[in-house]
Amino acid sequence: MNEREILTNYVYRIVASLLQQGVEEVVISPGSRSTPLAYAFASTEKFKMHRQIDERAAAFYALGIAKAKGQPVVLLCTSGTAAANYFPAIIEAKYARVPLIVLTADRPHELREVGAPQTIDQIRLYGEHVKYSMEFPIPDDASQTLSFIEHHIARATAIATAAPFGPVHINIPFREPLLIDFSDLPELTFQASFMHENVPSAEARNFLTQAIHATEKGLIVLGEMPLGTDVSPLWSFIRNCQLPVLIESLANMRSNVPEDCLPYVISTYDALLKNEHFKEIAAPRMVIRFGAQPVSKFLMQFLTASKPTHYIVIDEDALFRDSTNSSTHFIQGKPGEWLAQLPVQAKAEDYVALWQQAEEIAKKHVFQYSAHAQDEGAFVQKMLEIIPNGSDIFVSSSMPIRDIDTFFLATQKDIRIFANRGTNGIDGVTSTALGFSTVHKRPTYLLIGDLAFLHDANAFVASRYQVSDLTVVVMNNDGGGIFSYLPQASVEAHYENLFGTPTALTFRELAAMYDVQYERLEKLSAFEAALQANKHKPLRLLEVMTDRTVNVASHRALWQRIGEELSAWLQK
Amino acid sequence: MNEREILTNYVYRIVASLLQQGVEEVVISPGSRSTPLAYAFASTEKFKMHRQIDERAAAFYALGIAKAKGQPVVLLCTSGTAAANYFPAIIEAKYARVPLIVLTADRPHELREVGAPQTIDQIRLYGEHVKYSMEFPIPDDASQTLSFIEHHIARATAIATAAPFGPVHINIPFREPLLIDFSDLPELTFQASFMHENVPSAEARNFLTQAIHATEKGLIVLGEMPLGTDVSPLWSFIRNCQLPVLIESLANMRSNVPEDCLPYVISTYDALLKNEHFKEIAAPRMVIRFGAQPVSKFLMQFLTASKPTHYIVIDEDALFRDSTNSSTHFIQGKPGEWLAQLPVQAKAEDYVALWQQAEEIAKKHVFQYSAHAQDEGAFVQKMLEIIPNGSDIFVSSSMPIRDIDTFFLATQKDIRIFANRGTNGIDGVTSTALGFSTVHKRPTYLLIGDLAFLHDANAFVASRYQVSDLTVVVMNNDGGGIFSYLPQASVEAHYENLFGTPTALTFRELAAMYDVQYERLEKLSAFEAALQANKHKPLRLLEVMTDRTVNVASHRALWQRIGEELSAWLQK
Repeated sequence: MNEREILTNYVYRIVASLLQQGVEEVVISPGSRSTPLAYAFASTEKFKMHRQIDERAAAFYALGIAKAKGQPVVLLCTSGTAAANYFPAIIEAKYARVPLIVLTADRPHELREVGAPQTIDQIRLYGEHVKYSMEFPIPDDASQTLSFIEHHIARATAIATAAPFGPVHINIPFREPLLIDFSDLPELTFQASFMHENVPSAEARNFLTQAIHATEKGLIVLGEMPLGTDVSPLWSFIRNCQLPVLIESLANMRSNVPEDCLPYVISTYDALLKNEHFKEIAAPRMVIRFGAQPVSKFLMQFLTASKPTHYIVIDEDALFRDSTNSSTHFIQGKPGEWLAQLPVQAKAEDYVALWQQAEEIAKKHVFQYSAHAQDEGAFVQKMLEIIPNGSDIFVSSSMPIRDIDTFFLATQKDIRIFANRGTNGIDGVTSTALGFSTVHKRPTYLLIGDLAFLHDANAFVASRYQVSDLTVVVMNNDGGGIFSYLPQASVEAHYENLFGTPTALTFRELAAMYDVQYERLEKLSAFEAALQANKHKPLRLLEVMTDRTVNVASHRALWQRIGEELSAWLQK
Repeated sequence: MNEREILTNYVYRIVASLLQQGVEEVVISPGSRSTPLAYAFASTEKFKMHRQIDERAAAFYALGIAKAKGQPVVLLCTSGTAAANYFPAIIEAKYARVPLIVLTADRPHELREVGAPQTIDQIRLYGEHVKYSMEFPIPDDASQTLSFIEHHIARATAIATAAPFGPVHINIPFREPLLIDFSDLPELTFQASFMHENVPSAEARNFLTQAIHATEKGLIVLGEMPLGTDVSPLWSFIRNCQLPVLIESLANMRSNVPEDCLPYVISTYDALLKNEHFKEIAAPRMVIRFGAQPVSKFLMQFLTASKPTHYIVIDEDALFRDSTNSSTHFIQGKPGEWLAQLPVQAKAEDYVALWQQAEEIAKKHVFQYSAHAQDEGAFVQKMLEIIPNGSDIFVSSSMPIRDIDTFFLATQKDIRIFANRGTNGIDGVTSTALGFSTVHKRPTYLLIGDLAFLHDANAFVASRYQVSDLTVVVMNNDGGGIFSYLPQASVEAHYENLFGTPTALTFRELAAMYDVQYERLEKLSAFEAALQANKHKPLRLLEVMTDRTVNVASHRALWQRIGEELSAWLQK
């Protein structure tokens, strides 16, 4: 084989192995060194190719696709700092457990660490933040090379999609010339298979059953579930247990709640657990927690302070997630049929009734919120009310996720909530939502604050290359709203300089630049009308002007109203 | 001491040690975990505080300040992916040899790897890409802790500013509460000193002298010099040697050329070395190369193919930079007085004459360029002609640096050229130029293409927090212009999708969003008028609409005209 044939064969083996593992989406950023693989992906019809010139945004975009499909997505970039721009999204993917297959083209060995251009040390570039990192050999036609790359692509994909999901990295050196041969594309045939399961032992299942039966004060806590989790066994488990279940909005079990499970679902715990008296009475003796750590700090503090006899964390990763270091038992496993089959039924009528009645009090005040406040909370509540059944909301970190958690109560309406909660960054949120919505089949909304939106303004570049159908709702409170809730807000010195950091920017011009439908809104009624109006471009930006001071005061007033009625009721 | 006093004392020791080492600039991105240090910097008047919410842009901004001042700059961010956004600029700083002191706030040990929010593994986050990485202890008041942090800050600063300069990283965990005590700020007193020099041995100096005298065909090649290099010893060396000296625009020795050195300076080598006959005749027997590898691929290939008896690389780093692996000798050292004192004088009149006459031919065609072409080359040439004496140009990677290298000929005009050439990325270029111009005292221009400009559009957020005085000239050829010069351009399939990647974006709205003075230009005469017109806002954006196809054809025509006249002359 000549050089070009060798190169062609090499890159198509990579593509074939990815296809065989069911990988079908690739996000490419332009560059020269990655040319052979870029050609191979572009000329393989089974691959859907997405493009974004900003590699930081590209990586978050790929993360969004992977979140929407529950399948690994390939990233491809050229050598040099291009690859370093992937780092934030790779770290998010690690902690959020999202499968990404990161392919970085590299210069060959003779150009490394000798002052050659666009050459950095790419070996293990992402350190401990990928599950697997491999350097491929310079293309040759040895049979060992070809079976090596096929099997390592299969291995990397398997590792990315073994529980817990995560990112993997393959560094691929190419020597010039970089052109492949389009005249005789190789057949894409490669076969290898990978089987795994994730069910706890009989011993663990027995222990869990006994722990549930051992107390009348048991709680189930549900955080964000692994990607692609089927929630029906969890509903069966809740139905069998008959215990109060505190569900975080990101668990995507506040919506589509089966009617017979509704009495057990508690959504307002963050507000309830601000009341000392309630915390005392409601302290559980047994806790079973699934999924990622919930957003609510009050909930986490409550579980720790309650010192339950059994505090059981069930997670698919042996490095189990409990930031309070207060759990007593850890069971490794993924929610699945084994949960539905557990022979459990708690005797906890009184405890369920306590939580239910508290939930009713809190819900009443949450529902009446907009009668008292026209702040971001009211806008979020209105949004949840108006968006059509079957819609999804991608939610930014910082205040938006907290508002969703407060105002999105258990419902039979079908709305799902997604977010980047692996590391809770405000970076790359819009890109993730765009990637998500470009493959997602349901109407999608992004709820985001002005600083997070600004941080990832380049996300929109992707819309020049492929269509995403998305309504972006930016809460523009001109700065970092979340800091108003922290102790830093009590110190006037340097506050606006270091934490508020107002930019006085609005986004009308940015929308115009990217041909995005735009509306600027200040009133709840106008927001309602805008949400109900037709979207006539794929991307729509609704910029809602709000006030940081009003937000914090209104939220605190709500918590106070709930706390007061709760105290009055508990004192009866 | 109480908790708050301990924390206050701890962070002020860090600040005191930095000040004692002469560090005075800090770029802060808002966040909560970094609060104690942010307060300490903000309330220390000797520190100049800069802000940027996008940490990727912030790090490049700091790089720009460090480049302008030749001194280390501090970066401060919160925990989580914020820190990962620094990665591209850190890698550029490593390879470009720019001192950065990266301070990443972290969560305390009990919150690590347990699913806590905004917590990632930050230990050695930047891997091999920093010169030094240290984890600080959680603040306490032990005397060991305080002397540890003072000395390690001094040590880190010394390492960042030892040759070759580079980035260092310190990870600092903080436990809540994060407020410091403003009532009794500690005195900033810390003393430690660090001395180093970088002069080659007598043996190396003798060898160099002999190598110069051993041939009549010796060449000096000057790439980008270490930050803060005093070039006068290099001029003395050139004056003594009397050898042709091929100077890259980034060496900043094409301008301010001493009159008696002018005859030796060759600026047009990239064009000359496209001619086979000239390469044959001009092949050197001895080469001395200083600084980073020159941009010109033709020059590097010529030096390698010439197989000189002595190919000497002089560099401050033992990991010497020679991407062709063809150098024969390496001397570790920094250009300095020792060079001026070498007793050298080559007998190379004929060889000098050959290069001089070829330079004259090429120069003539370069000067006449705009009579033939109205492309990016003509715009760059016009810009070099018009900008005032005493101006500087920050130049993006990709085509702009190549055009500067072609059209910026040796001159006694005082213009300096800066660029991010550590890894030649197109990321963070505008941020670097903004950071550069915010501390730089001379009028500064940025020359950049549309994709690089778009990649770092968030750079302008910094202008909401501090003033930079900068004229940005964007060459908008709607896509990746440099690829047109590569073999990829010969393959029609997928070319525009993978390499051209046009966005059809222009930047009028972006300029409006950030209150930037804007003009869109298509003609050379209009560009000339715009450059001469008054700047009435701190930031000005001149968007020049060009055409990728025209650019490549015009450049090739220039090289052909030079090549033809050169051939005709050589055949005489």
